[in-house]
Amino acid sequence: MRLRYLFIFSLLVAASYALVQDFCVADLSLPAGPTGYSCKTPASVTENDFFYHGLATPGSTNNRAGAGVSWAFDSQFPGLNGLGISSLRLDLAVGGVAPLHSHPAATELVVIVEGTLTLGFISSFDDKVYIKTLNKWDVMVVPQGLLHFAINSGNTTALAFASFSSQNPGLQTTAFALFKNDFPTELVAKTTFLDAEQIKKLKALLGGTN
Amino acid sequence: MRLRYLFIFSLLVAASYALVQDFCVADLSLPAGPTGYSCKTPASVTENDFFYHGLATPGSTNNRAGAGVSWAFDSQFPGLNGLGISSLRLDLAVGGVAPLHSHPAATELVVIVEGTLTLGFISSFDDKVYIKTLNKWDVMVVPQGLLHFAINSGNTTALAFASFSSQNPGLQTTAFALFKNDFPTELVAKTTFLDAEQIKKLKALLGGTN
Amino acid sequence: MRLRYLFIFSLLVAASYALVQDFCVADLSLPAGPTGYSCKTPASVTENDFFYHGLATPGSTNNRAGAGVSWAFDSQFPGLNGLGISSLRLDLAVGGVAPLHSHPAATELVVIVEGTLTLGFISSFDDKVYIKTLNKWDVMVVPQGLLHFAINSGNTTALAFASFSSQNPGLQTTAFALFKNDFPTELVAKTTFLDAEQIKKLKALLGGTN
Amino acid sequence: MRLRYLFIFSLLVAASYALVQDFCVADLSLPAGPTGYSCKTPASVTENDFFYHGLATPGSTNNRAGAGVSWAFDSQFPGLNGLGISSLRLDLAVGGVAPLHSHPAATELVVIVEGTLTLGFISSFDDKVYIKTLNKWDVMVVPQGLLHFAINSGNTTALAFASFSSQNPGLQTTAFALFKNDFPTELVAKTTFLDAEQIKKLKALLGGTN
Amino acid sequence: MRLRYLFIFSLLVAASYALVQDFCVADLSLPAGPTGYSCKTPASVTENDFFYHGLATPGSTNNRAGAGVSWAFDSQFPGLNGLGISSLRLDLAVGGVAPLHSHPAATELVVIVEGTLTLGFISSFDDKVYIKTLNKWDVMVVPQGLLHFAINSGNTTALAFASFSSQNPGLQTTAFALFKNDFPTELVAKTTFLDAEQIKKLKALLGGTN
Amino acid sequence: MRLRYLFIFSLLVAASYALVQDFCVADLSLPAGPTGYSCKTPASVTENDFFYHGLATPGSTNNRAGAGVSWAFDSQFPGLNGLGISSLRLDLAVGGVAPLHSHPAATELVVIVEGTLTLGFISSFDDKVYIKTLNKWDVMVVPQGLLHFAINSGNTTALAFASFSSQNPGLQTTAFALFKNDFPTELVAKTTFLDAEQIKKLKALLGGTN
Repeated sequence: MRLRYLFIFSLLVAASYALVQDFCVADLSLPAGPTGYSCKTPASVTENDFFYHGLATPGSTNNRAGAGVSWAFDSQFPGLNGLGISSLRLDLAVGGVAPLHSHPAATELVVIVEGTLTLGFISSFDDKVYIKTLNKWDVMVVPQGLLHFAINSGNTTALAFASFSSQNPGLQTTAFALFKNDFPTELVAKTTFLDAEQIKKLKALLGGTN
Repeated sequence: MRLRYLFIFSLLVAASYALVQDFCVADLSLPAGPTGYSCKTPASVTENDFFYHGLATPGSTNNRAGAGVSWAFDSQFPGLNGLGISSLRLDLAVGGVAPLHSHPAATELVVIVEGTLTLGFISSFDDKVYIKTLNKWDVMVVPQGLLHFAINSGNTTALAFASFSSQNPGLQTTAFALFKNDFPTELVAKTTFLDAEQIKKLKALLGGTN
Repeated sequence: MRLRYLFIFSLLVAASYALVQDFCVADLSLPAGPTGYSCKTPASVTENDFFYHGLATPGSTNNRAGAGVSWAFDSQFPGLNGLGISSLRLDLAVGGVAPLHSHPAATELVVIVEGTLTLGFISSFDDKVYIKTLNKWDVMVVPQGLLHFAINSGNTTALAFASFSSQNPGLQTTAFALFKNDFPTELVAKTTFLDAEQIKKLKALLGGTN
Repeated sequence: MRLRYLFIFSLLVAASYALVQDFCVADLSLPAGPTGYSCKTPASVTENDFFYHGLATPGSTNNRAGAGVSWAFDSQFPGLNGLGISSLRLDLAVGGVAPLHSHPAATELVVIVEGTLTLGFISSFDDKVYIKTLNKWDVMVVPQGLLHFAINSGNTTALAFASFSSQNPGLQTTAFALFKNDFPTELVAKTTFLDAEQIKKLKALLGGTN
Repeated sequence: MRLRYLFIFSLLVAASYALVQDFCVADLSLPAGPTGYSCKTPASVTENDFFYHGLATPGSTNNRAGAGVSWAFDSQFPGLNGLGISSLRLDLAVGGVAPLHSHPAATELVVIVEGTLTLGFISSFDDKVYIKTLNKWDVMVVPQGLLHFAINSGNTTALAFASFSSQNPGLQTTAFALFKNDFPTELVAKTTFLDAEQIKKLKALLGGTN
Repeated sequence: MRLRYLFIFSLLVAASYALVQDFCVADLSLPAGPTGYSCKTPASVTENDFFYHGLATPGSTNNRAGAGVSWAFDSQFPGLNGLGISSLRLDLAVGGVAPLHSHPAATELVVIVEGTLTLGFISSFDDKVYIKTLNKWDVMVVPQGLLHFAINSGNTTALAFASFSSQNPGLQTTAFALFKNDFPTELVAKTTFLDAEQIKKLKALLGGTN
């Protein structure tokens, strides 16, 4: 008797997963795998899963860098799961900066929506710095995994939209990786050639220890 | 003697290609391969290769659809070659439309920059239509290869920025594939169930023959 | 005590999943991910998981198009999960047609087994139509995501076998995407340039609404 | 003056390669790369590039194995370049055999077109043999890189069509890898546990030396 | 009431999976998918997940081949899941041998740590054998899926470290695939041209049947 | 007449490239593409193309970091082209260090061959530092694109072998990216929060300007 119900249940469940194609909206409550989250059942997917409103609200620029970020990666926008693209909105106050960072898993394409931004990235094979000042609708591309930065080099608030060649590009900010954790000062000094005094000063500033 | 010069020449040439990494800016004058264009030699690459100004000029909306497109795919922006991302700018006049089309090789992510747009796509496994009206900074994602469209559903010019998960997404507009070529009317009719009269009318309108 | 049993249970379960390699036969009752279904435990896999008999039965050609299709995609043939290939059998009555459609996720390779078929596809970059009439054992390839069709152009039933470069190619038939759902007539008209009258006629024919 | 002509020439050449998308028909006269051959210029591509007639002629079965093979890999059918699919036709005389082999770069899907075939493959993690006898329209899948074979187990000529998840699957026949080259008998013996006498007998049979 | 708890629980669980990026340490107790195991929750990951001590113990060389192997594939070293790399340690007694085998899913790179090894692989397109004798710190690469072997050709124990371009390369040893299972002698003979007597002798030696 | 010779020549050339499979040994004198170098013709490939002796010579440790590196990436070892793997040898003097760096395009797997090394990497999503001290035959994995370092934490010279999941992983050393080029001090300061004085000191030390 129990087996019979199990069989029926199994058929019902099977049916609900049987059409995996076109998209795989993330179900964040289920275990993930190397290529992304598990999919919601197709029957529970609606147009709202492919829509994201979160970029309408700028991130606060009331911080040291004068930078506000609103994210649309897969964990904020589950409809991106498995589709190989994501985005963010960057607001920079006058004099604001997006600190030096890299995205381990994606190329980035930046378009300027308002104001003037100076963007730069550093190549890995010869440490050459590629810097360019961009105005409204100018586009720049930053190859995967390379260090890059943005500075508001104009006299007004700047606004940019960035898209990425992965639904989850990752983000490693150099200053945070060095100073905003328990990375021992001695090891930071040894592996970056920075002075211990400098390291301790920035750890204090950014909330790091050790 | 000749061999010695050949050897030296060979070393020089080798050196110029020996550091393929980080990026591969397209040399459009050389043969391409399945994954993209040949790379410029690293020594000839500058910051301008990663920068594109072409989206600052809107495409003309003085056409039947009231739609202007400016492209930043790899053939317009050679720095994208091999980096898995590209973009375009879409200007829609009041009442304008981006006709039904698909991108065979990429997912598309659209962000609204100005105005109001109604976007929709059609799934392949059950022909379900997912439609959503978007305002400034709203984002929508269209999975790879699916038919989709955009309509200016507001009272002002609309402006959107689209990015793609490939440097060369392709673009197949349904009306052009059916009516803007020499696809024989009889075959179009048979494979789409459209009436021959309708087909001939649209072929005349769009410049098709047969 | 409970923990000890849990520990033992955990080891047993771990053992059953510990050898993921060679293949991953789909367990359609478990959640799927972006790259396919979850795998059955290796111990439960038999030779029958790699075998499919479903193509021996032709799909009925008793329909408007005179086309019968039998599928061997991953949801019919779970052994294909993760292996990057699938197939189908197409039977076309005299005068029958495989209506215009695309596969968003795969290239298609068609071989003719019986009769004479006219195949065509449309490129995305210049709307060029590539058409060819094929006889027994002739092969044609249709690149990923492009619109294509087949017509029985002979005097006998035609039979073809198609294979795909994905275990789940998807299938978007243009007429069904336009007319076999609730896609509003006004939007179809605006985005395809078709007349409302034509659209309503085909919606009635194919079971669409709106 | 020379520069001006060079400039014009450069534009012409660029134009001819500027639209790499949809497909990349192989130009076998140009250097290849890790993912395939260089592309023909789009302007020189015709419908015949996507069409292959070579499978209409069976390979001769007048050999030791009673097996005839006609290939449609990318070097025979250049339109497959970059498209991730290929195929072959296998004719087996009564009692004929496709000797044990593997395809290093692709999964294989076999469909029976005539007769009765016994197919088998061997898993890599536990050496388990999966064997199945197939009749007309039965399908079997062989995961990438695994050893497999086919035998005509019926009383009539058998005919099968195989497709592959790569345009160039490779083919390594075990008996040929061991005995049809200059692989020293002593090394074959040591690395396969076969007797030297057996090895020398098969080297003589298959044309090997050493 | 139950729904409320369910809701809270769901949020908690979601939080624990919400940051899939950088790595995906395998949870061997959960179902796997085509690209690897499910991920442990980020909160439970420690430095020990990225560390493996198992290669410090050589595999026993007290066997027919005089070969000891210690593995670091994903099922032994779960931190490799999804990262596209793995390794093993090979100890060969004097006269020892790594029997002829292939890795269906990975290229192999071998470095010699101690002693002298003769390595060889066989190409698939012309059965050519590439053989090389290697000493300390020499490196050899074996392309994916090709048959290869190693022999201790020196007078001392040899030690090598191999790494692979996949977290789960698979391993198919020719002699085991032929003789260490229930592959019927008649089918082995037919598909490899070996004599039945030879096959039965090796089946007896290696523990095969049939 | 000329055409006839051209035709013959074309056939000869075609023949030499017609068998691209198994491997693609780099020809560094030809243009590269996004996925690697052009292939040598198969006829010119020998066993030496798959063999590399360059790791037998340690890199000099007579430098600030006490670190010597010998590379086996695709530009040093052309046989790796397209095969998805590469390696290097790291010699660290007592107290030596491999400065903080990332590989934009590959996961790294490190095995200790001699001595004691402390390895660490920093995750991108929470800046957590994973540190571990390793002895002979211990293995550690560093996920793609993340900052990491190694320190000789023992009393003897240390020796490690690293392999990578790409034939060209790239290498971006943080201190060199910041201080060993013309990256303007003001921009470095603004994007890393470092003091200008510290930056100028390290630019002087490492050879940077501006």
